[in-house]
Amino acid sequence: MASGKILVAQGGGPTAVINQSLVGVTLEARHFRNVERVYGARHGVRGILEEDFIDLTQETSHNLELVAKTPSSALGSTRDKPDVKYCQEIFKVLRAHQIEHFFYIGGNDSSDTVQIVSQQAQKAGYPLRCIHIPKTIDNDLVGNDHTPGFPSAARFVAQAFAGANLDNASLPGVYVGVVMGRHAGFLTAAAALGKKFPDDGPHLIYLPERTFVLEQFLADVKAVHDRIGRCVIAVSEGIHDASGIPVISLLAKNSEHDAHGNLQLSGTGALADLLCEEIKSKLQIKRVRGDTFGYLQRSFIGCVSDVDQCEAREAGEKAVQFAMRGDRDGSVAIRRSGNYAVDYALLQLQEVAGKTRVMEDAFIAASGTDVTEAFRQYLRPLLGADMPEASRLRANPVAKIIAAAS
Amino acid sequence: MASGKILVAQGGGPTAVINQSLVGVTLEARHFRNVERVYGARHGVRGILEEDFIDLTQETSHNLELVAKTPSSALGSTRDKPDVKYCQEIFKVLRAHQIEHFFYIGGNDSSDTVQIVSQQAQKAGYPLRCIHIPKTIDNDLVGNDHTPGFPSAARFVAQAFAGANLDNASLPGVYVGVVMGRHAGFLTAAAALGKKFPDDGPHLIYLPERTFVLEQFLADVKAVHDRIGRCVIAVSEGIHDASGIPVISLLAKNSEHDAHGNLQLSGTGALADLLCEEIKSKLQIKRVRGDTFGYLQRSFIGCVSDVDQCEAREAGEKAVQFAMRGDRDGSVAIRRSGNYAVDYALLQLQEVAGKTRVMEDAFIAASGTDVTEAFRQYLRPLLGADMPEASRLRANPVAKIIAAAS
Repeated sequence: MASGKILVAQGGGPTAVINQSLVGVTLEARHFRNVERVYGARHGVRGILEEDFIDLTQETSHNLELVAKTPSSALGSTRDKPDVKYCQEIFKVLRAHQIEHFFYIGGNDSSDTVQIVSQQAQKAGYPLRCIHIPKTIDNDLVGNDHTPGFPSAARFVAQAFAGANLDNASLPGVYVGVVMGRHAGFLTAAAALGKKFPDDGPHLIYLPERTFVLEQFLADVKAVHDRIGRCVIAVSEGIHDASGIPVISLLAKNSEHDAHGNLQLSGTGALADLLCEEIKSKLQIKRVRGDTFGYLQRSFIGCVSDVDQCEAREAGEKAVQFAMRGDRDGSVAIRRSGNYAVDYALLQLQEVAGKTRVMEDAFIAASGTDVTEAFRQYLRPLLGADMPEASRLRANPVAKIIAAAS
Repeated sequence: MASGKILVAQGGGPTAVINQSLVGVTLEARHFRNVERVYGARHGVRGILEEDFIDLTQETSHNLELVAKTPSSALGSTRDKPDVKYCQEIFKVLRAHQIEHFFYIGGNDSSDTVQIVSQQAQKAGYPLRCIHIPKTIDNDLVGNDHTPGFPSAARFVAQAFAGANLDNASLPGVYVGVVMGRHAGFLTAAAALGKKFPDDGPHLIYLPERTFVLEQFLADVKAVHDRIGRCVIAVSEGIHDASGIPVISLLAKNSEHDAHGNLQLSGTGALADLLCEEIKSKLQIKRVRGDTFGYLQRSFIGCVSDVDQCEAREAGEKAVQFAMRGDRDGSVAIRRSGNYAVDYALLQLQEVAGKTRVMEDAFIAASGTDVTEAFRQYLRPLLGADMPEASRLRANPVAKIIAAAS
């Protein structure tokens, strides 16, 4: 069993429950008498580099519980991806502060970071226990049934589409909602959980797991619109053509990339606008509206899955237990063990790092524009309690008088 | 006291509580023994024209209560603006069905419709009692302290900015959130209620009540960004230059107008993208993100003010009471009568119809980019119970070791 100080940090995009994991680490670590201090690094690995730590051991339990309920990374985040030199600087700081445990809460880019830091620590002969704690609204970590943060974002998307469908039913036309998800369509697919009645939208769902063909898209929209006079569409920001080129790139003049080489897909309404323009001009439909859910879907305060909250907390607690009672580095993973219960495993870092999970074929309907019942059953328990539901007036038509007489 | 059948319809953009008013009318009308039937017209005045009625008298109380909690117009809505000929067709249908009361739930375009229908009825000598029930997320009806629908949308906007501020603090940069509001900035101003700590965003708020000058905007953003390293901005979709030209028009190639002559501002991310592009290129700030809240802010299921729900219900109930016990047409208005309580008045239709309220000067800070404490006090009670709140870790900095030694 190791001893001393532990360091926790948060990387990548925030989620609604990432602070549950932070608090899970902090409170669980206090149960171990050999833990002298729990430090938090501000803005991920960058905070280590800059020796920018706060002492979480001085936090009250009450305030930690309040922070746990607050979305987005309380410690701050970063998109930095450490190279060898970066890691050497990190070690210098960790050594100076006698830190022996490093917990990094993040997605697949962050798991990559943990793996590099772990490898560099081994090479340098520095006894650092590195544990990756999963977090991503994209749900794209391999080895996990699902990842903390995804259920709450999925709940937001399902609720948003339930509302957008009502809006569209009230003032009919075509509605395009663009959802986050670079390679994995899980979050976009969650739109399907907003449906209650058979004719509810989303009527069409476009995922990055399937090739996007503009002509087919327009034909799909026309078919739905011809049939029911309206159409609600969920589109992943990561949709791409047959050669893998993102549809947004076909439009964007100035594309932007982050340190991980990722093209900027979020923070712009361009994709929704492009698709709406195509529908307006090619299908001659007048009322076409597009929304890009943007940052709301990952940071909106007050829309959270209680199941997600508990699991994110547990992932943090388990990380500390694995570190203190185990003998290796790794990545905490959620495994489904019932309908519905979960358990936690510690995967090897190389099983997770740099890999991207996408939606299984069994979750995507043969049409390519809907999900299967298997996906609905997979997602439903994750959304948590008290999902709001839409209700309709019953059809009690009044007999026409004038029309009947004419 | 009038008798017979009553007709209720919903016009304009949906809100989170517009069905509360519908259910308020329906249930209250049942208390009057002279009310034989309550009909609902599908899709506003268009449903009257097309004789498309459903019999709400056959609805169960339980289902009506479920519908009341559902956002968006349960009867469907319309953007039609009746002219004289349209109204003559309407009378033909109302006469045929012996309808003597017309309740129209809507915003200022809808109050205009009610006024035209009322005038046409009087000219035609048809005994039709016309009551307008207020509804608009824009809060731009004159004679009202506020309008049903606005508090819930304001709550969504405040919660969205509370989350966006956390996201921006975690991954610093510039964030632009575009909020609905053609002429009135109330909903955009609601972003200020998402602030808890002094350095929280939104740091800048741009309202249609003030002239938008791009150079000043860029200088404002630069000043905030230079000071705190980040900047969260709330922008109304209706911002315009000194000559009144909407900023979005300066960009849009193909602009779209509805039947009321309104330029399409929503359902496109163009304004946010334009502003982000200006900030990126002129201020050389790398991380600039824009979201357009779009339809989420008026139809999101599961984000509602309980105060708004009750008031929207009461506005519907009062409309029936005014119609049954009064002797004139009019528009129901909410008056504040305490801190916090409300009462209801019946205004003359011409006091409300076709008029647009904008934010009072006392609500806008001298800088033009913030709200006043008076506005915060005005809005706070409307947002309802259990507003989610952000919490922070306390600052317990760990002493630097390496930096101190060098």
